[in-house]
Amino acid sequence: MVHARRTPERLSAFSDGVFAVLITVLVLELRPPEIPTFTALLALWPTWLSYAVSYVFIAIVWANHHHLMRYASEATPRLMWFNFAHLFSVSLLPLSTAWMAVSELAPQPVAFYAAVFFLVNASYVALIWDLVGRAPPSEVSPRDRSIMRIRSVVTLGIFAAAAGVALKFPILGLAMCCGCLIVYLKPEPSGAKDGTPVDGGE
Amino acid sequence: MVHARRTPERLSAFSDGVFAVLITVLVLELRPPEIPTFTALLALWPTWLSYAVSYVFIAIVWANHHHLMRYASEATPRLMWFNFAHLFSVSLLPLSTAWMAVSELAPQPVAFYAAVFFLVNASYVALIWDLVGRAPPSEVSPRDRSIMRIRSVVTLGIFAAAAGVALKFPILGLAMCCGCLIVYLKPEPSGAKDGTPVDGGE
Amino acid sequence: MVHARRTPERLSAFSDGVFAVLITVLVLELRPPEIPTFTALLALWPTWLSYAVSYVFIAIVWANHHHLMRYASEATPRLMWFNFAHLFSVSLLPLSTAWMAVSELAPQPVAFYAAVFFLVNASYVALIWDLVGRAPPSEVSPRDRSIMRIRSVVTLGIFAAAAGVALKFPILGLAMCCGCLIVYLKPEPSGAKDGTPVDGGE
Amino acid sequence: MVHARRTPERLSAFSDGVFAVLITVLVLELRPPEIPTFTALLALWPTWLSYAVSYVFIAIVWANHHHLMRYASEATPRLMWFNFAHLFSVSLLPLSTAWMAVSELAPQPVAFYAAVFFLVNASYVALIWDLVGRAPPSEVSPRDRSIMRIRSVVTLGIFAAAAGVALKFPILGLAMCCGCLIVYLKPEPSGAKDGTPVDGGE
Repeated sequence: MVHARRTPERLSAFSDGVFAVLITVLVLELRPPEIPTFTALLALWPTWLSYAVSYVFIAIVWANHHHLMRYASEATPRLMWFNFAHLFSVSLLPLSTAWMAVSELAPQPVAFYAAVFFLVNASYVALIWDLVGRAPPSEVSPRDRSIMRIRSVVTLGIFAAAAGVALKFPILGLAMCCGCLIVYLKPEPSGAKDGTPVDGGE
Repeated sequence: MVHARRTPERLSAFSDGVFAVLITVLVLELRPPEIPTFTALLALWPTWLSYAVSYVFIAIVWANHHHLMRYASEATPRLMWFNFAHLFSVSLLPLSTAWMAVSELAPQPVAFYAAVFFLVNASYVALIWDLVGRAPPSEVSPRDRSIMRIRSVVTLGIFAAAAGVALKFPILGLAMCCGCLIVYLKPEPSGAKDGTPVDGGE
Repeated sequence: MVHARRTPERLSAFSDGVFAVLITVLVLELRPPEIPTFTALLALWPTWLSYAVSYVFIAIVWANHHHLMRYASEATPRLMWFNFAHLFSVSLLPLSTAWMAVSELAPQPVAFYAAVFFLVNASYVALIWDLVGRAPPSEVSPRDRSIMRIRSVVTLGIFAAAAGVALKFPILGLAMCCGCLIVYLKPEPSGAKDGTPVDGGE
Repeated sequence: MVHARRTPERLSAFSDGVFAVLITVLVLELRPPEIPTFTALLALWPTWLSYAVSYVFIAIVWANHHHLMRYASEATPRLMWFNFAHLFSVSLLPLSTAWMAVSELAPQPVAFYAAVFFLVNASYVALIWDLVGRAPPSEVSPRDRSIMRIRSVVTLGIFAAAAGVALKFPILGLAMCCGCLIVYLKPEPSGAKDGTPVDGGE
């Protein structure tokens, strides 16, 4: 009975829908300036900057989510709820980016921003643990897996530290967040050749 | 002629699109506070709470919808219209949650909230009846089916009662709603082992 | 070379996304009333009514679109542009419904409403002509085809007439629109048994 | 291991979600006029015009994106990021169209508009280069490829020139943009018969 199996396709499709709405939420905030000059357009820079930054960061999150979901073979209730938690944290990104930009990098909004990324990362770690952590070695090489694990723990620690640091030195806290995101620019563990180790050898 | 069969895939895809928009509608309401302090952020608690609660409840509804749609093998007109009715009721959830939160749990908004859940549940019962109620016993074990039925009737009754009770004791009415939703946290009938009985026997 | 064929799946998926946004656009307008009473909720009746009506009508349009797209076997440029025209007309429905409700059925908004439905129907007729009109008789029985054609021409005429009539008698114009929509409640030509004639014969 | 391959389906689905939101963003701006007359409706012409124009242009972009993605056989990180850059540029279209219309074709908004189209086109050229530029001749005929390349370079040049020209003669700058878009109305290179050369010979 084909339709009784819970394939992860609909989970991915639903997640894509949510990502598509979230990545465009801030574009709804971009209003054409009253005056038809570039100066007026540039005066809106906090909104512009926060749209661009939030777009790039949600794109990074999507790329990693997309990468990880390839390991899913069944939409178990646990996977579903970890995924909902992940999407919920991601949905706070546009707001926190906007708040940070509007406040011109005030300490508490930057700390809140780092905290949201901590949540996004924590729920991503849960997804990794559910999807990759229990996969047989033939699917994920032990080396990849330990790279993924180390990366997760280290970035989680840095985001937590950044939230604390930002309360005193917001610029430094923000720099720490950006540093972590650069690590995630490449979804594959950095040691892995493009797809090769994933196919697992024989 | 392959393309003449009405597969339920597009029905699921459309529903996912609607769910994705609905689950993020309230995030559009979250505005960065004027003042860059946590206090200002916390002052927005009714919006925050209603976003979180409505997110979780729509997630529960999605999980159950996803579970049920696995039994669909054809997009009949009846299934389509039951599904539209279900999505319509779900689309009232963000509004009713926001109203309840803004009014700080006043009697009538809580009663309205319970009524919306009554509608969501009633249209879900119609979907169950259409998809599971007429399936052969090889697909759905009689035990699962009767668990599903009993659960539906009982929760429908409780939501209706909650709407009445809320007019006098809103906190109690809300607690009754939450109790029902916990029952739906697990889409599978509670007696069923993960997927096993669905595969139908031997 | 599998990926060179232009399958209509992505066209359907894109259309579903647009429909999902459009059907929920008006729910964004529903704001929780200031005062926590049912009276305050009912005072918003024009918004409520226009949401419900526009939801049902977009649902009817979706059901017909879904029905028709089953005949598509390739996403030709013509099909793509007819589809864009159809989606554009549908996107005017929420606005025209809202205007009609807000103006409490004033003549010109009702005439505009009928005109939008004329456009929706005209672009649907173009889709029918592209997808069904040139299909071999084995796919669409001649009887079905002539029913579809007659229905199209008649409803087009009635929508056009309704736009004119509404300028004098808005209620009558609106009734004519609703009458046409009832005809479309069942996407299959009314003479056809559920799916049977579509499978073409023996 | 089937799920380890990075199929481009999810990339397309995500892009479709973003396109669906973007193409309907401006419809959210259309508000029913206060007064129930056609005059009041026509007074909103800048919003109407910018919605219609932006709809048509996003439709053209979607049709070309859809055409190009058929050449994708794997969602490589490069393809993903080129695609994100493309979607980001497209997301600026509604805003820039609205600004141009509101300012009644003032020089700087038209120049900004041409600049946005330059970005959309530049990222599209990157997608062409990634997907078609390195495909074997059996998939894309050398003639098609050189038509695609020439078209890209020429339109890029014209959009850049249009941005400069618009600062002095906005109407001329806008006409240049529209001219380029007409070239893209047909996604296939103009020399190619419908699909034939793509199938690559016998």
